[in-house]
Amino acid sequence: MEESPKWVAAGLECTAMRPADTPENAALLEEKPALFAALSPLGRRVAFPADIPAQAADARGKAFNATIGQITDGKGGAVALAPTAAALGGLGPEERNRAILYSPVQGIEPLRVAWRRWQRRAAGSGDGPQASTLPPSTLPPSTRPLVTAGLTHGLSIAADLFGGEGRAVAVPAPFWGNYRQTFANRTGAVMRTAPAYREGGFHPEWPEEALDGLPAEEPAVAIVNLPSNPGGYSPTVEERRRLIASLVREAERRPLVVLCDDAYAGLVYEPGVPRGSIFWELAGRHQRLVPVKIDGATKELSFFGGRVGFLTFAFEPESAAAEALESKVKCLIRAVMGSPVATSQMIVLAALEDPGVEAEVERVRVLLEGRYRVLREALAAVDRELLLPLPFNSGCFVLLELAAGVTATADQVRRHLLDAHDTGLVSIGERHLRIAFCSVGGEALPELVRRIESGVRELASGSGG
Amino acid sequence: MEESPKWVAAGLECTAMRPADTPENAALLEEKPALFAALSPLGRRVAFPADIPAQAADARGKAFNATIGQITDGKGGAVALAPTAAALGGLGPEERNRAILYSPVQGIEPLRVAWRRWQRRAAGSGDGPQASTLPPSTLPPSTRPLVTAGLTHGLSIAADLFGGEGRAVAVPAPFWGNYRQTFANRTGAVMRTAPAYREGGFHPEWPEEALDGLPAEEPAVAIVNLPSNPGGYSPTVEERRRLIASLVREAERRPLVVLCDDAYAGLVYEPGVPRGSIFWELAGRHQRLVPVKIDGATKELSFFGGRVGFLTFAFEPESAAAEALESKVKCLIRAVMGSPVATSQMIVLAALEDPGVEAEVERVRVLLEGRYRVLREALAAVDRELLLPLPFNSGCFVLLELAAGVTATADQVRRHLLDAHDTGLVSIGERHLRIAFCSVGGEALPELVRRIESGVRELASGSGG
Repeated sequence: MEESPKWVAAGLECTAMRPADTPENAALLEEKPALFAALSPLGRRVAFPADIPAQAADARGKAFNATIGQITDGKGGAVALAPTAAALGGLGPEERNRAILYSPVQGIEPLRVAWRRWQRRAAGSGDGPQASTLPPSTLPPSTRPLVTAGLTHGLSIAADLFGGEGRAVAVPAPFWGNYRQTFANRTGAVMRTAPAYREGGFHPEWPEEALDGLPAEEPAVAIVNLPSNPGGYSPTVEERRRLIASLVREAERRPLVVLCDDAYAGLVYEPGVPRGSIFWELAGRHQRLVPVKIDGATKELSFFGGRVGFLTFAFEPESAAAEALESKVKCLIRAVMGSPVATSQMIVLAALEDPGVEAEVERVRVLLEGRYRVLREALAAVDRELLLPLPFNSGCFVLLELAAGVTATADQVRRHLLDAHDTGLVSIGERHLRIAFCSVGGEALPELVRRIESGVRELASGSGG
Repeated sequence: MEESPKWVAAGLECTAMRPADTPENAALLEEKPALFAALSPLGRRVAFPADIPAQAADARGKAFNATIGQITDGKGGAVALAPTAAALGGLGPEERNRAILYSPVQGIEPLRVAWRRWQRRAAGSGDGPQASTLPPSTLPPSTRPLVTAGLTHGLSIAADLFGGEGRAVAVPAPFWGNYRQTFANRTGAVMRTAPAYREGGFHPEWPEEALDGLPAEEPAVAIVNLPSNPGGYSPTVEERRRLIASLVREAERRPLVVLCDDAYAGLVYEPGVPRGSIFWELAGRHQRLVPVKIDGATKELSFFGGRVGFLTFAFEPESAAAEALESKVKCLIRAVMGSPVATSQMIVLAALEDPGVEAEVERVRVLLEGRYRVLREALAAVDRELLLPLPFNSGCFVLLELAAGVTATADQVRRHLLDAHDTGLVSIGERHLRIAFCSVGGEALPELVRRIESGVRELASGSGG
């Protein structure tokens, strides 16, 4: 008698499973049944085709290789326009060559290796104030990251794989508005929210509250963004423990894909607050909890215009599940943009290989920490009858909640600040304003806070239009 | 009494029109009813949200601007890691700054202006052998191009706007396989093909043949890729006239979106063959024919890894229709990848502003023309009992059809060439092989052809495994 397949053991027998019609789906059904159950219809049907890039890979190293539609000198060298080569003059000749020619669909191999090393060492960097809660030696497995065109592109690939019509996507509110575009507007998924803050503090049980009422066994997605945008908050050790417990309890009810949006990884300013990605602590926690790490050079290496992001799964790099997912993701990358950006991949690789990279990244963190301290002090003095600063300790932002007595909406405040105080903030929903202190000099922050307070006071007292 | 709306006049009254529920849809229904009728459900629902980028645009130039989540020095300057700045050392300080920070979602404005100038002057460059069929003074209007992450990203945006479940997409066969991923696999559209070649020559009436049998009034998409991939063919003046006539006749039957995939624009090697984009000749031809121009720096400026493409409509730049489409496209760009690649946009801008850019591009064309002539001569001597080279005159490729007497499939030939002749080609379908002469030196092409001929002969005679 045959053993029960793993997906029966995993309690997935009541989920309507399509037959595993491709080798990729068969591998995932066998190895990672909860992930397979959570795939969208699009996620099920994609697989990297035996098309030009696959055939070009077959031909690599052949004496005569006439597979790829890119212009070369016949020996693999780029035929660049002179001004293009000049602009990239800071790279060595071989690096410049790779920057001008196509990247492999999955990304440039040395960069994938270098970023994986960066991810795994950042996760376990020592016992100091910035420490992860996991030591490096105990890190769970992770795939070689797939390269995306910036962090949002990684989110949109996850949305294609795990979103789709009617799929529940849990996020704490207020949330970054682009999640709605990426998941709901594009794929038809349904955002489900719960408050990120409760009684002035972080609310670690938001995942269960957001998914409350969703039928058991129905797969869902949760987005965990730490440090958070727009909140600028990272949970303490105890809050993190409760957040993980909430996600695990939810995974007892259903296959749960947890997208770890690690955009602001490392930008933590308070001692005792863990800075390692929660991805490492979710990996292997529960067989129906599927963590996915989405990160990038955008904020982590302060390279916004380069559009270099990464998508990583918590599997062994050479496993069948890793290869099946790589095939699916490559199909989506090829269908949406051909291949990721070689130019900025080579620039990121140069940065990662620079012996000073840690010091450079720390220099940026210290710059932001300085602004954070100035802003914290300025906000401490703000009139609580007008504005309630929500807790923040990390990242690039702080959220201000309009006090109950202020009748103006957040967008009315925003417009008044633009018109009367030469000051631009972002309004979120009816009651919140976001300050991006990453783009304001420390010396300007006290005056910025004064202007915001004045603007709100004018509207509250009816003197401000 | 009110006038009939334009969409009634355009013969669209029998198409099920949803109410125009957004300002963008209302503008398109009023100004471009055929385009509106062809929008997919996703194309109808997208519009750029009043979210962070829109609010950041409101705050531009304010004394205090705390809107954007990117790390700056507080005065708009990038805070780059030292190795990132060094890699881009060939750009001036202001250009380097823009290369490191976020691009606007629609693209960097000076690049949009420069590329529009490039598009419009290339279209009408003189009366010489490379001339367009349209003089520059008669060019129809075109929008400021929207910047995409390479040409495929422009195609995928068009697929999101005009594809969707069941939508007919006409292409001549053989076609570039990635069209299937971008349109059919991702959005659920249905590819419809007709032969690109008939009796050894180009078949200009392929659009009508591909859409034959589709119910009248049902909107459709046609992809016109000239010079073609995988064919390496550009129609003569007379063939082009017949192709346009076929598209116009089809537009009499239905709203027809014609995607002009101009990837290989300008790479034409025979006198008398027009090199201008067919986009200019389709604009304004018929009120139900909607041309869209999709082009990029990838091949046109020989910058493959940069991922800079453009999406252009045949409307006045400041028109309500242009603005409505810009809003929709920006929503899709933001949802899929945040913003396009600033780094390579600035490199492309540097190239376009270089006084030598025309000569540099011509240098690349002349290099490829030299290979084309060598390959043409080598193929002229090939045994027609084995291989039938299809007509080619442009671009980067030539197609070889296996002669009727060869029983091996194209992929069997490809594998045999890899194994026994150290030679890589791309197989397409059962009967075609593609040579990418853009990536093989001219001196190697005669030997490449000899190896291909030998390989096919071995399989035909049964001596080759």
